[in-house]
Amino acid sequence: MTDPGTDARRRMVIGAADMIRRRGVSATSVRDLAKHAHAPLGSTYHYFPGGKQQLAAEAVRFAGGTVSRILTRELAAGPVAGLRAFLALWRDTVLSTDFQAGCPVLAVAVEEPADDQRDAVEAAAEVFTGWEALLADALRRYGAADADAVRLATLTVAAVEGSVAMCRAKRDIRPLDEVAASLETLLSAAVSA
Amino acid sequence: MTDPGTDARRRMVIGAADMIRRRGVSATSVRDLAKHAHAPLGSTYHYFPGGKQQLAAEAVRFAGGTVSRILTRELAAGPVAGLRAFLALWRDTVLSTDFQAGCPVLAVAVEEPADDQRDAVEAAAEVFTGWEALLADALRRYGAADADAVRLATLTVAAVEGSVAMCRAKRDIRPLDEVAASLETLLSAAVSA
Repeated sequence: MTDPGTDARRRMVIGAADMIRRRGVSATSVRDLAKHAHAPLGSTYHYFPGGKQQLAAEAVRFAGGTVSRILTRELAAGPVAGLRAFLALWRDTVLSTDFQAGCPVLAVAVEEPADDQRDAVEAAAEVFTGWEALLADALRRYGAADADAVRLATLTVAAVEGSVAMCRAKRDIRPLDEVAASLETLLSAAVSA
Repeated sequence: MTDPGTDARRRMVIGAADMIRRRGVSATSVRDLAKHAHAPLGSTYHYFPGGKQQLAAEAVRFAGGTVSRILTRELAAGPVAGLRAFLALWRDTVLSTDFQAGCPVLAVAVEEPADDQRDAVEAAAEVFTGWEALLADALRRYGAADADAVRLATLTVAAVEGSVAMCRAKRDIRPLDEVAASLETLLSAAVSA
């Protein structure tokens, strides 16, 4: 049997990740989230005593963890296979939502938090660093030099994140597809050098 | 003599660009902007009958235009000189604000606007496309093949935008510096091939 409280808590985290990837943290209200999760408003403060910042931090870690699991699995077949899976995830996010959703980690990173409320931003930093480490490890495993591996991993995460935002603004998938072609060439060259 | 009305209007646009690059559109209120520009609240609706969306669109175009003028000037000395100026601008923005500000164009691109309020997002799309065109033109002028020029220009804008957000989350300038090194290598190779 599933604990309905745990279920409601989980629905709120997933709902927060979805709202944040669409409209950012400021425009995401705890009231809307409770409604979305069919939970009484008071229960949100029971589950998340730290309020919206705690909920946003958990949403960022949830989204980051989902991507990391897929990356880890696909990188086992090599850096290019991992890159393709990473790109496919974001391509699907953007296209399946008609350009209305992007990356919740990026959304959190570009909103300066209110005083001392850095939980969500720190979660975003951890997620970026985690994705970079997974990519760099795979590149090293497949023969890339250490400095190249780190540099290419950072370029990959930065370019994919930036291109997702460009796609949303332009309502056009081309920026992501152009970036995908460039990165695939670079990662292939790094492991076959 | 300067028209004080025009001055107040201009102060509001500049103030909006600054607030949006720090905290996004949703958390930027017209009330705060009027206060920031020492203008009565009512005057904002006189200058910007379209409200916050109009102000945000003008702020994005103002910021985009400032960057475009610098890019155009520096690209006259070649793609790598232009790239360095583009990177220096963002490096200065992030460091001079203690990681509290990034790019207002990106900020607008990642917030799904309320119904039919696409003015600011459309301005963001135009700015991204304009920066890409300036970079691609310079690459072509210096001998890059057309498809390479377009692809590298998109990669540059995407990677710089993404890395600025990563720097803010991590409170560390390294993502931008790593991306800078990668892009400089790629642009140099494209024009000397």
